Amino acid sequence: MPVSNSPLRLYVPDDLGVGLTIPLPTDQSRYVVQVMRRTVGDPILLFNGRDGEWQGEVERADKKATTVALSKSLRPQTHEPNLWLLFAPVKRTATDLIVQKATELGVTVLVPVITTHTNKDRVKAERLTSIAVEAAEQSRRLTIPEIRAPIHLTGAFTNWPDSHSLYVLDETGTGAPIAQVLADFKAQQTGSGAFVMGPEGGFTETELDLLRALPFSTFVSLGPRILRAETAALAALTCWQALCGDWCSSIE
Amino acid sequence: MPVSNSPLRLYVPDDLGVGLTIPLPTDQSRYVVQVMRRTVGDPILLFNGRDGEWQGEVERADKKATTVALSKSLRPQTHEPNLWLLFAPVKRTATDLIVQKATELGVTVLVPVITTHTNKDRVKAERLTSIAVEAAEQSRRLTIPEIRAPIHLTGAFTNWPDSHSLYVLDETGTGAPIAQVLADFKAQQTGSGAFVMGPEGGFTETELDLLRALPFSTFVSLGPRILRAETAALAALTCWQALCGDWCSSIE
Repeated sequence: MPVSNSPLRLYVPDDLGVGLTIPLPTDQSRYVVQVMRRTVGDPILLFNGRDGEWQGEVERADKKATTVALSKSLRPQTHEPNLWLLFAPVKRTATDLIVQKATELGVTVLVPVITTHTNKDRVKAERLTSIAVEAAEQSRRLTIPEIRAPIHLTGAFTNWPDSHSLYVLDETGTGAPIAQVLADFKAQQTGSGAFVMGPEGGFTETELDLLRALPFSTFVSLGPRILRAETAALAALTCWQALCGDWCSSIE
Repeated sequence: MPVSNSPLRLYVPDDLGVGLTIPLPTDQSRYVVQVMRRTVGDPILLFNGRDGEWQGEVERADKKATTVALSKSLRPQTHEPNLWLLFAPVKRTATDLIVQKATELGVTVLVPVITTHTNKDRVKAERLTSIAVEAAEQSRRLTIPEIRAPIHLTGAFTNWPDSHSLYVLDETGTGAPIAQVLADFKAQQTGSGAFVMGPEGGFTETELDLLRALPFSTFVSLGPRILRAETAALAALTCWQALCGDWCSSIE
């Protein structure tokens, strides 16, 4: 099915339910009417991260104030595995790629962490959120990930629950093979996991010591080649979904 | 270790061995001398896909004809798992990303396949090869993947050995979870695998029937979300390396 013929699929913050009419904000109205040329009666799918996925039809096609009348529920909201990614911001293109792909791969929380070798300590949260929303819309995901404000690595694990397993992507090669580590995780059934990855220059020895000392941390290896930051992030999230997450059972 | 301080690492076609002096072609000479500002005596690492990794030093620094004198072998050539990716070419940026990431993830052969919904039936093999070489150089890989000429899907499996397991990335949801399928593969120890993925528009029913009828094919699922073509490719290769490939054991 070519994507162009599929109904548009949009994230909205509003409550969704039978008989409701949802007003779209200006940017979405313009996108629906002017960019995608949808008109009255055309189907639109909506989700809000709480009420599942709904089908509606364009009730009013207006480039500033389009409305969608909901007709039926298509999918109920389902449980999502709790999977976090703490990443040192890299170059803009690579950071964008991490956010887009992590969203497709079902990450629930993204946390930019500032480390000694991080060469970029600012991220535009609004920009990253819009990338995540678009990726969620296109991937048929029912939620959007939460994007936290940047935090220094040294303060990132205050009040961290012991049951939230932390996997350190360790390019110095001291970690155990990721498939083996995640098989152990699955056996424990603690249910939630997080990966932390350093910047291109790697973690410092002090940072590695800090991470090693955490009672909930495990160092993992991603094989004999040196992966770029964005590749490592995607590979780790992929392994988690395939081995412990929502790729384990056939859905739909 | 910041990458900028590391020795340059270059792929060359020449034989490598103790006492040999390797002439670099013009483009590499210019890169080494003018771009990276290396001079006589600076270390350079070389690999050719056959003789492992060698350390050498710049013997003559010339923007058109730099030479490197080899001093010692750093790593022997090692066995690489045989892992192929057959992919329908997508937009240029996404195709470039597939080639770069697949190289980091250790793919051995890349085959562009033309399908009914493929909207781009030409790829610039030279351009893709240079992306693969750069990714191999940066990832400390000891080989570069082979990039084949594009072939129509209908002819892609002529003379395909039965022992070369083919996994079809099936976004229609009929496949089994990838981790389960690859666990079976590992148990069989046939040793070589290939993934085939369709274009953004998916395979046609006729193409799916063709793929289903192949005696060496298995349909796999990558979870409940719809992944972009490049994400699906990287996720599949990641799962293979993590579960059956060279990420299974700690190396180095």
